[in-house]
Amino acid sequence: MSGAARLIGVGVGPGDPELLTLKAVRALEQADVIAHFAKAGYASNARAIVAGHLKPNVVELPLLFPVTTEIPKNAPAYCSKIKEFYDGCAGAIAAYLDTGRSVAVLCEGDPLFYGSYMHLQARLAARYPTDVIAGVTGMSGSWSAVGMPIAQGNDVFTVLPGTLSEPELERRLADADAAVVMKLGRNLPKVRRALERAGRLDRAIYVERGTMADAVMLPLAAKAGDDAPYFAMVLVPGWEERP
Amino acid sequence: MSGAARLIGVGVGPGDPELLTLKAVRALEQADVIAHFAKAGYASNARAIVAGHLKPNVVELPLLFPVTTEIPKNAPAYCSKIKEFYDGCAGAIAAYLDTGRSVAVLCEGDPLFYGSYMHLQARLAARYPTDVIAGVTGMSGSWSAVGMPIAQGNDVFTVLPGTLSEPELERRLADADAAVVMKLGRNLPKVRRALERAGRLDRAIYVERGTMADAVMLPLAAKAGDDAPYFAMVLVPGWEERP
Repeated sequence: MSGAARLIGVGVGPGDPELLTLKAVRALEQADVIAHFAKAGYASNARAIVAGHLKPNVVELPLLFPVTTEIPKNAPAYCSKIKEFYDGCAGAIAAYLDTGRSVAVLCEGDPLFYGSYMHLQARLAARYPTDVIAGVTGMSGSWSAVGMPIAQGNDVFTVLPGTLSEPELERRLADADAAVVMKLGRNLPKVRRALERAGRLDRAIYVERGTMADAVMLPLAAKAGDDAPYFAMVLVPGWEERP
Repeated sequence: MSGAARLIGVGVGPGDPELLTLKAVRALEQADVIAHFAKAGYASNARAIVAGHLKPNVVELPLLFPVTTEIPKNAPAYCSKIKEFYDGCAGAIAAYLDTGRSVAVLCEGDPLFYGSYMHLQARLAARYPTDVIAGVTGMSGSWSAVGMPIAQGNDVFTVLPGTLSEPELERRLADADAAVVMKLGRNLPKVRRALERAGRLDRAIYVERGTMADAVMLPLAAKAGDDAPYFAMVLVPGWEERP
């Protein structure tokens, strides 16, 4: 692909570098520029996952979030800052594309499933050829590490951001056969209460860094304290009637 | 892993052999026995995906479903036949494990997400060491092929089997921000009506064999006729308010 302007959203999977796809590895070997998101002042998780596959001296374009969880996401200040940030990222990538170079944007998990990449694609796909390479999601990595079937047969499976209100979480947890609650962080006490009220706390598994050597996996009911990183998740398996 | 009894559920992804993970390829190279599900009389899709990575003369164990969609899934005859089938599969795998061999079970998509493999794991994991290698799901492959962001931010994302009743499909489609309806086949006319009544038909995309060269992808509203294979799916994207 070298020499041809192309935007590529590359899913790099949930954390274990072995969960990269062959297609992602090939894209990293061929891309002229590797772009990766990170919080300002922190290393990029996605870049760490692919570090073993980067060409020496490949051009890198770090995309550094000016703000993540410091401002409520519904505040006007957050929206304008983040819009400006994505506009700037798209401009920086377009500058490379305009010189005929291909740009691979690293995406933790799967690019089009709750990822930041889609903000770039929405701004650039009408003007440049674009590819998306699907990746293993963080949730698949987590339930595989636990070894816990998540959904089967006629199960309804739902993904809930932990940012939802407590009554909304409770209602939806009671209405799904299987569920994953993402974006835990400071939402964990609320998520725990909603699971309890929905009658699902006894089945809930808490997972941090599911596919990594330092993974934390335990029944949520057995977890002491309510500290949780933003990317931790809770799994509620379905498949209650096994054949 | 050769020489040590181990059951490995290997996610082989949605169809494109390039969407195999490095970990899956390594497992295929190391396993003593490769087991794969198929409908009796048909080739295994999962085996076709990994054909380029199988060792010459590797031992293969085909697991042939005696019945798939010929009998309603809630009929007692179906339940007893399918239970007997999984018991037999588990027995055949255990016979290899008991001689100290590792058995990799090929799983389309992700092993623990609506897969047949979990029936084997439920029967064997208490007796043998077991690993699960997460894979790219069919739905990730599909929305990536379309290039359509499926969910973002505070979106609630729901996976619905097309086997649900029409009122249940309608209610859940109206209640989710983003949705995937799987197991289409003969359920397509019902799914189409439920989408229309839920006010979501205009956003729905129909996908068959999403990551393959002969993929079919089009707005469901533009699809003539109601023929659909069982593994076709409908995608309903969320992210209606882009920043």
